[in-house]
Amino acid sequence: MSRETELVIATNEAFYTALEAADLDALERLWVDDAAICIHPGLTPIHGRKAVLRSWAAILAATPYLQFVLTDVVIEMRDGTAVITCTENLLSAADGMPETVFAGGHAVATNVFRRDGDRWRLWVHHASPVQRRDE
Amino acid sequence: MSRETELVIATNEAFYTALEAADLDALERLWVDDAAICIHPGLTPIHGRKAVLRSWAAILAATPYLQFVLTDVVIEMRDGTAVITCTENLLSAADGMPETVFAGGHAVATNVFRRDGDRWRLWVHHASPVQRRDE
Repeated sequence: MSRETELVIATNEAFYTALEAADLDALERLWVDDAAICIHPGLTPIHGRKAVLRSWAAILAATPYLQFVLTDVVIEMRDGTAVITCTENLLSAADGMPETVFAGGHAVATNVFRRDGDRWRLWVHHASPVQRRDE
Repeated sequence: MSRETELVIATNEAFYTALEAADLDALERLWVDDAAICIHPGLTPIHGRKAVLRSWAAILAATPYLQFVLTDVVIEMRDGTAVITCTENLLSAADGMPETVFAGGHAVATNVFRRDGDRWRLWVHHASPVQRRDE
Protein backbone atom coordinates (compact mmCIF):
# COMPACT_ATOMS: atom_id res chain seq x y z
CA MET A 1 0.00 0.00 0.00
CA SER A 2 1.45 3.39 -0.98
CA ARG A 3 2.05 6.08 1.60
CA GLU A 4 -0.67 8.25 0.00
CA THR A 5 -3.17 5.41 0.20
CA GLU A 6 -2.29 4.90 3.85
CA LEU A 7 -2.81 8.61 4.52
CA VAL A 8 -6.26 8.61 2.89
CA ILE A 9 -7.35 5.50 4.78
CA ALA A 10 -6.10 7.06 8.03
CA THR A 11 -8.09 10.22 7.24
CA ASN A 12 -11.20 8.14 6.59
CA GLU A 13 -10.74 6.37 9.93
CA ALA A 14 -10.13 9.69 11.68
CA PHE A 15 -13.49 10.89 10.32
CA TYR A 16 -15.38 8.00 11.93
CA THR A 17 -13.34 8.25 15.13
CA ALA A 18 -14.28 11.93 15.37
CA LEU A 19 -17.96 11.01 14.94
CA GLU A 20 -17.71 8.31 17.64
CA ALA A 21 -16.06 10.79 20.00
CA ALA A 22 -18.50 13.57 18.99
CA ASP A 23 -15.36 15.65 18.50
CA LEU A 24 -16.55 18.63 16.47
CA ASP A 25 -13.11 20.29 16.49
CA ALA A 26 -11.57 17.22 14.88
CA LEU A 27 -14.43 17.10 12.37
CA GLU A 28 -13.83 20.73 11.48
CA ARG A 29 -10.15 20.04 10.78
CA LEU A 30 -11.02 17.05 8.63
CA TRP A 31 -13.33 18.79 6.15
CA VAL A 32 -12.10 20.95 3.28
CA ASP A 33 -12.40 24.67 3.91
CA ASP A 34 -14.54 25.31 0.86
CA ALA A 35 -17.25 23.43 -0.96
CA ALA A 36 -17.84 20.66 1.59
CA ILE A 37 -20.74 18.38 0.58
CA CYS A 38 -22.59 16.02 2.92
CA ILE A 39 -25.57 13.76 2.27
CA HIS A 40 -26.97 12.01 5.34
CA PRO A 41 -29.01 8.82 4.79
CA GLY A 42 -32.40 9.64 3.30
CA LEU A 43 -31.78 13.38 3.22
CA THR A 44 -30.94 15.96 0.55
CA PRO A 45 -27.41 17.39 0.09
CA ILE A 46 -25.92 19.92 2.49
CA HIS A 47 -23.41 22.29 0.91
CA GLY A 48 -20.78 24.37 2.68
CA ARG A 49 -18.50 23.64 5.60
CA LYS A 50 -20.52 25.53 8.22
CA ALA A 51 -23.85 23.95 7.31
CA VAL A 52 -22.25 20.48 7.17
CA LEU A 53 -20.69 20.90 10.62
CA ARG A 54 -23.98 22.21 12.03
CA SER A 55 -25.75 19.08 10.73
CA TRP A 56 -23.21 16.84 12.45
CA ALA A 57 -23.50 18.82 15.67
CA ALA A 58 -27.27 18.25 15.63
CA ILE A 59 -26.92 14.53 14.88
CA LEU A 60 -24.23 13.96 17.51
CA ALA A 61 -26.14 15.93 20.15
CA ALA A 62 -29.13 13.62 19.59
CA THR A 63 -27.04 10.42 19.65
CA PRO A 64 -25.76 9.37 23.11
CA TYR A 65 -23.72 6.47 21.71
CA LEU A 66 -22.37 5.81 18.24
CA GLN A 67 -19.91 3.21 17.05
CA PHE A 68 -18.84 2.43 13.49
CA VAL A 69 -17.29 -0.77 12.23
CA LEU A 70 -16.20 -0.24 8.64
CA THR A 71 -16.21 -3.11 6.17
CA ASP A 72 -15.80 -3.42 2.39
CA VAL A 73 -13.40 -0.46 2.36
CA VAL A 74 -12.27 0.18 -1.24
CA ILE A 75 -10.09 3.09 -2.26
CA GLU A 76 -9.40 4.61 -5.69
CA MET A 77 -7.03 7.53 -6.11
CA ARG A 78 -6.28 9.82 -9.08
CA ASP A 79 -4.36 13.10 -9.21
CA GLY A 80 -4.91 14.51 -5.74
CA THR A 81 -8.44 13.10 -5.37
CA ALA A 82 -9.33 9.87 -3.61
CA VAL A 83 -12.64 8.04 -3.35
CA ILE A 84 -13.39 5.53 -0.61
CA THR A 85 -16.51 3.41 -0.58
CA CYS A 86 -17.30 1.47 2.56
CA THR A 87 -20.07 -0.12 4.52
CA GLU A 88 -20.78 1.63 7.81
CA ASN A 89 -21.92 -0.96 10.35
CA LEU A 90 -23.41 1.15 13.10
CA LEU A 91 -24.15 0.53 16.72
CA SER A 92 -26.04 3.27 18.52
CA ALA A 93 -28.10 3.67 21.65
CA ALA A 94 -31.60 2.22 21.19
CA ASP A 95 -34.38 4.74 21.76
CA GLY A 96 -36.18 4.19 25.05
CA MET A 97 -34.21 1.04 25.88
CA PRO A 98 -31.77 0.29 28.75
CA GLU A 99 -28.14 1.33 28.23
CA THR A 100 -27.17 -2.27 27.58
CA VAL A 101 -29.36 -2.47 24.46
CA PHE A 102 -28.01 -1.21 21.15
CA ALA A 103 -29.58 -0.54 17.79
CA GLY A 104 -27.66 -1.82 14.79
CA GLY A 105 -27.80 -0.64 11.23
CA HIS A 106 -25.95 -0.49 7.95
CA ALA A 107 -25.26 2.32 5.54
CA VAL A 108 -23.10 2.52 2.46
CA ALA A 109 -20.86 5.56 2.11
CA THR A 110 -18.92 7.30 -0.61
CA ASN A 111 -16.24 9.57 0.84
CA VAL A 112 -14.26 11.81 -1.51
CA PHE A 113 -10.96 13.29 -0.28
CA ARG A 114 -8.72 16.01 -1.71
CA ARG A 115 -5.03 16.37 -1.11
CA ASP A 116 -4.32 19.62 0.72
CA GLY A 117 -0.54 20.07 0.98
CA ASP A 118 0.80 17.07 2.90
CA ARG A 119 -2.54 15.94 4.23
CA TRP A 120 -5.90 14.79 2.90
CA ARG A 121 -9.25 16.33 3.73
CA LEU A 122 -12.83 15.22 3.30
CA TRP A 123 -14.63 16.91 0.41
CA VAL A 124 -17.78 14.78 0.00
CA HIS A 125 -19.56 12.36 2.35
CA HIS A 126 -22.62 10.60 0.91
CA ALA A 127 -24.17 7.92 3.12
CA SER A 128 -27.30 6.00 2.20
CA PRO A 129 -29.38 3.18 3.58
CA VAL A 130 -28.83 -0.32 2.21
CA GLN A 131 -31.21 -3.20 1.87
CA ARG A 132 -30.42 -6.48 3.61
CA ARG A 133 -26.71 -7.23 3.17
CA ASP A 134 -27.34 -10.67 1.69
CA GLU A 135 -29.52 -9.40 -1.15
CA MET B 1 -20.31 29.82 -16.14
CA SER B 2 -16.85 28.65 -17.22
CA ARG B 3 -16.39 26.45 -20.26
CA GLU B 4 -15.19 23.60 -18.00
CA THR B 5 -18.30 23.89 -15.85
CA GLU B 6 -20.46 23.81 -18.97
CA LEU B 7 -18.67 20.68 -20.16
CA VAL B 8 -19.22 18.87 -16.86
CA ILE B 9 -22.89 19.81 -16.75
CA ALA B 10 -23.29 18.65 -20.36
CA THR B 11 -21.60 15.34 -19.44
CA ASN B 12 -23.96 14.94 -16.49
CA GLU B 13 -26.96 15.56 -18.78
CA ALA B 14 -25.57 13.15 -21.36
CA PHE B 15 -25.46 10.47 -18.65
CA TYR B 16 -29.16 10.81 -17.89
CA THR B 17 -30.04 11.10 -21.59
CA ALA B 18 -28.18 7.83 -22.22
CA LEU B 19 -30.18 6.18 -19.41
CA GLU B 20 -33.48 7.48 -20.82
CA ALA B 21 -32.53 6.17 -24.27
CA ALA B 22 -31.18 2.90 -22.80
CA ASP B 23 -28.11 3.65 -24.91
CA LEU B 24 -25.45 1.33 -23.50
CA ASP B 25 -22.84 2.41 -26.07
CA ALA B 26 -23.21 6.02 -24.95
CA LEU B 27 -23.04 4.92 -21.30
CA GLU B 28 -19.84 3.02 -22.01
CA ARG B 29 -18.22 6.11 -23.55
CA LEU B 30 -19.27 8.24 -20.57
CA TRP B 31 -17.66 6.18 -17.80
CA VAL B 32 -13.95 6.28 -17.01
CA ASP B 33 -12.01 3.29 -18.32
CA ASP B 34 -10.70 2.28 -14.92
CA ALA B 35 -12.04 2.32 -11.39
CA ALA B 36 -15.68 3.16 -12.19
CA ILE B 37 -17.85 3.15 -9.06
CA CYS B 38 -21.65 2.94 -9.01
CA ILE B 39 -24.08 2.74 -6.10
CA HIS B 40 -27.71 2.19 -7.07
CA PRO B 41 -30.38 3.24 -4.53
CA GLY B 42 -30.45 0.84 -1.59
CA LEU B 43 -27.66 -1.35 -2.93
CA THR B 44 -23.98 -1.86 -2.17
CA PRO B 45 -21.19 -0.41 -4.36
CA ILE B 46 -20.31 -1.87 -7.75
CA HIS B 47 -16.67 -1.44 -8.75
CA GLY B 48 -15.20 -1.66 -12.24
CA ARG B 49 -16.44 -0.46 -15.61
CA LYS B 50 -17.69 -3.85 -16.84
CA ALA B 51 -19.66 -4.67 -13.70
CA VAL B 52 -21.14 -1.16 -13.62
CA LEU B 53 -22.26 -1.37 -17.25
CA ARG B 54 -23.73 -4.84 -16.66
CA SER B 55 -25.79 -3.46 -13.77
CA TRP B 56 -27.18 -0.69 -15.97
CA ALA B 57 -27.96 -3.16 -18.75
CA ALA B 58 -29.99 -5.22 -16.27
CA ILE B 59 -31.82 -2.17 -14.89
CA LEU B 60 -32.59 -0.73 -18.32
CA ALA B 61 -33.75 -4.10 -19.69
CA ALA B 62 -36.25 -4.29 -16.81
CA THR B 63 -37.47 -0.70 -17.24
CA PRO B 64 -39.70 -0.08 -20.28
CA TYR B 65 -39.84 3.69 -19.70
CA LEU B 66 -37.56 5.99 -17.76
CA GLN B 67 -37.46 9.77 -17.65
CA PHE B 68 -35.32 12.00 -15.43
CA VAL B 69 -35.98 15.61 -14.55
CA LEU B 70 -32.96 16.96 -12.69
CA THR B 71 -33.36 19.65 -10.05
CA ASP B 72 -31.08 21.17 -7.39
CA VAL B 73 -28.04 20.71 -9.64
CA VAL B 74 -24.94 21.98 -7.81
CA ILE B 75 -21.42 21.66 -9.17
CA GLU B 76 -18.04 21.99 -7.45
CA MET B 77 -14.79 21.61 -9.37
CA ARG B 78 -11.14 21.30 -8.27
CA ASP B 79 -8.05 20.30 -10.24
CA GLY B 80 -9.50 18.00 -12.86
CA THR B 81 -12.21 16.56 -10.62
CA ALA B 82 -15.81 17.77 -10.50
CA VAL B 83 -18.64 16.80 -8.18
CA ILE B 84 -22.30 17.31 -9.08
CA THR B 85 -25.10 16.73 -6.62
CA CYS B 86 -28.63 16.71 -7.95
CA THR B 87 -32.12 15.46 -7.29
CA GLU B 88 -33.27 12.86 -9.80
CA ASN B 89 -37.03 13.23 -10.29
CA LEU B 90 -37.98 9.99 -12.01
CA LEU B 91 -40.90 8.93 -14.09
CA SER B 92 -41.04 5.27 -15.02
CA ALA B 93 -43.59 2.77 -16.22
CA ALA B 94 -45.81 1.59 -13.37
CA ASP B 95 -45.75 -2.17 -12.79
CA GLY B 96 -48.91 -3.89 -13.98
CA MET B 97 -50.60 -0.62 -14.94
CA PRO B 98 -51.75 0.70 -18.35
CA GLU B 99 -49.14 2.51 -20.46
CA THR B 100 -50.68 5.86 -19.59
CA VAL B 101 -49.89 5.42 -15.87
CA PHE B 102 -46.47 6.37 -14.57
CA ALA B 103 -44.68 5.82 -11.29
CA GLY B 104 -42.84 8.81 -9.88
CA GLY B 105 -39.97 8.89 -7.45
CA HIS B 106 -37.06 10.90 -6.17
CA ALA B 107 -33.44 10.05 -5.58
CA VAL B 108 -30.47 12.18 -4.65
CA ALA B 109 -27.27 11.63 -6.58
CA THR B 110 -23.60 12.43 -6.21
CA ASN B 111 -21.78 12.20 -9.55
CA VAL B 112 -18.00 12.59 -9.61
CA PHE B 113 -16.30 13.37 -12.94
CA ARG B 114 -12.65 13.32 -13.99
CA ARG B 115 -11.14 15.34 -16.77
CA ASP B 116 -9.78 13.01 -19.46
CA GLY B 117 -7.95 15.09 -22.09
CA ASP B 118 -10.48 17.57 -23.51
CA ARG B 119 -13.54 15.80 -22.15
CA TRP B 120 -14.99 14.76 -18.80
CA ARG B 121 -15.98 11.27 -17.80
CA LEU B 122 -18.05 9.80 -15.01
CA TRP B 123 -15.99 8.25 -12.22
CA VAL B 124 -18.55 7.76 -9.43
CA HIS B 125 -22.37 7.65 -9.42
CA HIS B 126 -24.01 7.27 -6.01
CA ALA B 127 -27.80 7.51 -5.97
CA SER B 128 -29.89 7.05 -2.85
CA PRO B 129 -33.52 7.28 -1.85
CA VAL B 130 -34.75 10.48 -0.21
CA GLN B 131 -37.49 11.00 2.30
CA ARG B 132 -40.37 13.32 1.44
CA ARG B 133 -38.91 16.40 -0.26
CA ASP B 134 -40.57 18.82 2.14
CA GLU B 135 -39.00 17.29 5.24
